[in-house]
Amino acid sequence: MSLPSLIEDEFVTVDAHTLTDTVRAVLRANGADAAGAQTQATHLIEAELRGHPSHGVRRLPIIVERLRAGFIVPGVEPEFSWVTDSVLRVDGRNGFGPAVAWRTVELVAARAASTGITLATVSAANHIGMLSPYVEELALGGWIAIALTTSEALVHPWGGSRALVGTNPIAIAVPSATDPIVLDMSTSAVSMGKVIEHSARGIPIPAGWAVDEHGESTTDATAATSGAISPFGGAKGFALGLTLEAMVGVLSATALGRDVHGTLDAERAVTKGDVFICIDVERIGVSAMLPVLSRYLEEVRDSGDVRVPGDRSRVERAHRLTHGITLDPALWDQLTSLTEGVHHD
Amino acid sequence: MSLPSLIEDEFVTVDAHTLTDTVRAVLRANGADAAGAQTQATHLIEAELRGHPSHGVRRLPIIVERLRAGFIVPGVEPEFSWVTDSVLRVDGRNGFGPAVAWRTVELVAARAASTGITLATVSAANHIGMLSPYVEELALGGWIAIALTTSEALVHPWGGSRALVGTNPIAIAVPSATDPIVLDMSTSAVSMGKVIEHSARGIPIPAGWAVDEHGESTTDATAATSGAISPFGGAKGFALGLTLEAMVGVLSATALGRDVHGTLDAERAVTKGDVFICIDVERIGVSAMLPVLSRYLEEVRDSGDVRVPGDRSRVERAHRLTHGITLDPALWDQLTSLTEGVHHD
Repeated sequence: MSLPSLIEDEFVTVDAHTLTDTVRAVLRANGADAAGAQTQATHLIEAELRGHPSHGVRRLPIIVERLRAGFIVPGVEPEFSWVTDSVLRVDGRNGFGPAVAWRTVELVAARAASTGITLATVSAANHIGMLSPYVEELALGGWIAIALTTSEALVHPWGGSRALVGTNPIAIAVPSATDPIVLDMSTSAVSMGKVIEHSARGIPIPAGWAVDEHGESTTDATAATSGAISPFGGAKGFALGLTLEAMVGVLSATALGRDVHGTLDAERAVTKGDVFICIDVERIGVSAMLPVLSRYLEEVRDSGDVRVPGDRSRVERAHRLTHGITLDPALWDQLTSLTEGVHHD
Repeated sequence: MSLPSLIEDEFVTVDAHTLTDTVRAVLRANGADAAGAQTQATHLIEAELRGHPSHGVRRLPIIVERLRAGFIVPGVEPEFSWVTDSVLRVDGRNGFGPAVAWRTVELVAARAASTGITLATVSAANHIGMLSPYVEELALGGWIAIALTTSEALVHPWGGSRALVGTNPIAIAVPSATDPIVLDMSTSAVSMGKVIEHSARGIPIPAGWAVDEHGESTTDATAATSGAISPFGGAKGFALGLTLEAMVGVLSATALGRDVHGTLDAERAVTKGDVFICIDVERIGVSAMLPVLSRYLEEVRDSGDVRVPGDRSRVERAHRLTHGITLDPALWDQLTSLTEGVHHD
């Protein structure tokens, strides 16, 4: 295997299978069921593969603490209720987020084949992780998909300095005749995961990302974690993020603002919500558009130094599948220490 | 009636009823049916009332030209086909945009009362105008609503300088126990309507709004109209706008990129698409969330110099209903000249 050029002391490189096995073993050692551990591990490693370590194995210690504290309930069966033919209400019953989310996605996709459009509202699922794997998988199968989730209040309103709004990401994927277009972005200038990553590495954050606890702009990542992240794109980004929080909170009947807990801490049950909308392209009779979209996206790519949403992740993923995933050695040590007392399955 | 303090030579002030009557008369004089003229006029004046002249009566001359050229067909009945119980396909048959859109909105709202969620995909409707009136009306009735539309390729991709993407607005409204939250924003740094408004008034545009035909940043509004508008919020805003274009184009089986025509010109049939998603809050059983949302939005408003999306339009609207709408005298002269040969109904 050919490794990327690395300063050996700075990083360790682990292949995706080894890393998945390690994370799964950690989860199993801490009480996770086999299926839950597998789904959770795979989803964390997907984020690493796509070049988003903020949603990768850095999240594992909190997940383990939540397992130990009983805030993640292993092996639980989510409760699925079809409110109408097109609307699925999901009570995650505090299960692993990705386990609940993947089950939900399968159900709404299958149902959209008859109803055309389906909506799933999810409460009491733990952090579902990076959104793009869900919507991309759906788009590869011929569905247009939207995924939304709320998060802890980390972002200040435009015109305010107190953290009152989640980083509220939006993911949308649309199939084409070639690769789907896959949007996955937070509505903050940056995700808290990335700020935490900078803090953990002891490196500063760029100006414009965040304010400190006094509402002053800061480049100190650790100070930012007790302050507030700025919305992306000024007033518009704030407006979008707040509206998504309102929509997801109402639809999933979950908490809003500072009442959202449980994706960054190990002290409280999860109170955020998730929403999926799924549309079957073939069922609504517009499959003829897929090659039209492919040609358009190609024109956009060819117009400069331009990437279509999803392109970069695809390249990063292919690279890391071949060359491995680089990790901070301290993080790797932390992960492997969590395997102490493992009972392999 | 108390008028705002105005330099008399610079503006004329017209009350909303007079302006609506004038616009309706212009449309009738140019062949519009009574109902179409009323709906189109009311929608243009709604934009003026909300303080968005870019989507107001400034659009009337093009609408009149399109009527005269046969690209807007007055009195036509849109074709509504329920593809599934939850999905409505609408062929606007080149009718007035707002007339098609309001009919569509009524149908999807009524159906959502049984199905929970409905999707409408609209082709061959002329420019449906400002999106917020549609979603706000739905939210006031207890629906969560999303409205999307494509537009002429006016925005350059992030990393490119050629106009290949529409300004692709997104509107979302969510009911609360008090006022709904109403998002309505383009995914460009500014709407082309606003650039045209600056050009018409001979005033410069702020840096960052646009590039000229050579791809260079410009503050000359007229130069910007032959160049490209920048996406809002950098790479993220571009990613959002492009993905919305892909989604709306595929869902409504309408044109993408530079094949989108007919909202700014009077030379071609309209080729853009519109999408509405409507969710009945009561039907899905989450009405108890509405006071929770009200309290949260109040906390956000109270946290600084902060406005919740929809607040500003509400204030502007109330002010203009009392104090009238101010117009550029040249625009007013142009409007009134379009009434020549009017046959009042």
